Amino acid sequence: MGLDVQTRSSDPDGGPIGVFDSGIGGLTVVAALRRLLPNESIFYVGDTARVPYGGKSKTTIERYSTEISKLLLAENAKMLVVACNTSSALALTYLRDQFSVPVLGVIQPGAAAAIAVSRNKRIGVIGTRATIASKAYDQAIQAMCAEAQVFSRACPLLVPLIEEGMFRDEVTDLTLQRYLESLLQKDIDTLVLGCTHYPLLREAIARVVGAKVTLVDSAQNCALAVQDALLKKKKINQRADGNLRVALTDATEGFLRVAEKVLGLDIRNVELLGVRES
Amino acid sequence: MGLDVQTRSSDPDGGPIGVFDSGIGGLTVVAALRRLLPNESIFYVGDTARVPYGGKSKTTIERYSTEISKLLLAENAKMLVVACNTSSALALTYLRDQFSVPVLGVIQPGAAAAIAVSRNKRIGVIGTRATIASKAYDQAIQAMCAEAQVFSRACPLLVPLIEEGMFRDEVTDLTLQRYLESLLQKDIDTLVLGCTHYPLLREAIARVVGAKVTLVDSAQNCALAVQDALLKKKKINQRADGNLRVALTDATEGFLRVAEKVLGLDIRNVELLGVRES
Repeated sequence: MGLDVQTRSSDPDGGPIGVFDSGIGGLTVVAALRRLLPNESIFYVGDTARVPYGGKSKTTIERYSTEISKLLLAENAKMLVVACNTSSALALTYLRDQFSVPVLGVIQPGAAAAIAVSRNKRIGVIGTRATIASKAYDQAIQAMCAEAQVFSRACPLLVPLIEEGMFRDEVTDLTLQRYLESLLQKDIDTLVLGCTHYPLLREAIARVVGAKVTLVDSAQNCALAVQDALLKKKKINQRADGNLRVALTDATEGFLRVAEKVLGLDIRNVELLGVRES
Repeated sequence: MGLDVQTRSSDPDGGPIGVFDSGIGGLTVVAALRRLLPNESIFYVGDTARVPYGGKSKTTIERYSTEISKLLLAENAKMLVVACNTSSALALTYLRDQFSVPVLGVIQPGAAAAIAVSRNKRIGVIGTRATIASKAYDQAIQAMCAEAQVFSRACPLLVPLIEEGMFRDEVTDLTLQRYLESLLQKDIDTLVLGCTHYPLLREAIARVVGAKVTLVDSAQNCALAVQDALLKKKKINQRADGNLRVALTDATEGFLRVAEKVLGLDIRNVELLGVRES
């Protein structure tokens, strides 16, 4: 038994999948990972001390993403999953340049899924101000499918509405109509939910866009990309039921308990982690 | 002339008034100060790298407030004005314990003004989640007027709506109706705008509450308290037209230009200041 423990702790495949987001939204990715890869352990860090990232500059987002990645690597993470569209859009290359473990974001999987489901190749993308301004989805989609047309819209009010738990609310519906009107006029048949918060609002968004528009969920597609990468690197954990550890950088849990319930996650103690400037 | 410069820079009364907020909202206090005390120079720091404070914990708000105060004191600020209700509610005592210059917040002046204008002593207060949870207004109002009744409501969507410039908008009106309905049912005759963002939404709030409710603006009353404190300490600047310097901790200006226009401020170069953990 001593040997077994020894083997596990020195085995690089035995580390958790490290997942981070600016706050709580990335738990949608965690929920998808838990369903798809129940044997994997996950260590999730939400940077609630500095949430949100969506309105901040590239330099600041790169620095924050690096600092949080270091917290995950200090816990022996075998892979980094950037479960935040803003950070994936602005800091992914920066992270890959610094760290030797695989670093996966949510943009590439979401872009690939959108191309796969779109028939008319007219694809809508919604996200934070920073994600949309980065044009990361436009570039990822057009790199894979040159004839695709991308119509995007920053929706900065959706994260606050979701964090208030206003999933079924007149204010939310009116806000969504305002944001989505211009995209619907472009005859899109696919809409990428380009923020990890947005799957929590999937029903309300579906009501507004109607049945003709397919919603592409970055959380689900990111989980599939993680599975694919683990299979390729032969790092799938075959041995035991995985567990989920959740840490935040600020003691305020925000809408953690709302998200936990909606996503069907089992989050027990939430750890508080200090974050230091790099 | 050399002597004049020497005199000014070594004169403690010659330093600027240091004003800070978690972001841009505190510029409402700056605008009130510029009108009331045009001879005073103001150095304003908005902590846009970590905005908003309103959903974060007391410990984190105390730490951030200390770090930003140190940036102001490094520029020889003769007084600290905490132009952020959340920070005033949670970190004012903590700041006063650390620094020797006068530290003024927005809660006390707002509470005093509310008592002065209320006839029935039924006072409503709106603010961020952290401000309302702290009960700082309740305590300040009841310490000055034991028979006053305070009815408060956290309005976390208002800051994002203001930052989107949605001052005249159906979504904003609907949100305000939702938030204010329960306060209006309590027969309040006074409503404290307990967040430095909110004066930017004064007209929409006035439409919803109607003419029977007087709005108390924390910005204007804070400026009066600053004037009073400067007079008492004989630190009023008598000599020259004051100037306004604005610095942010993140390069993203957010809604700075919207606020500048609405408030009639003249903000030229915006400096970028790094902030280090204390």
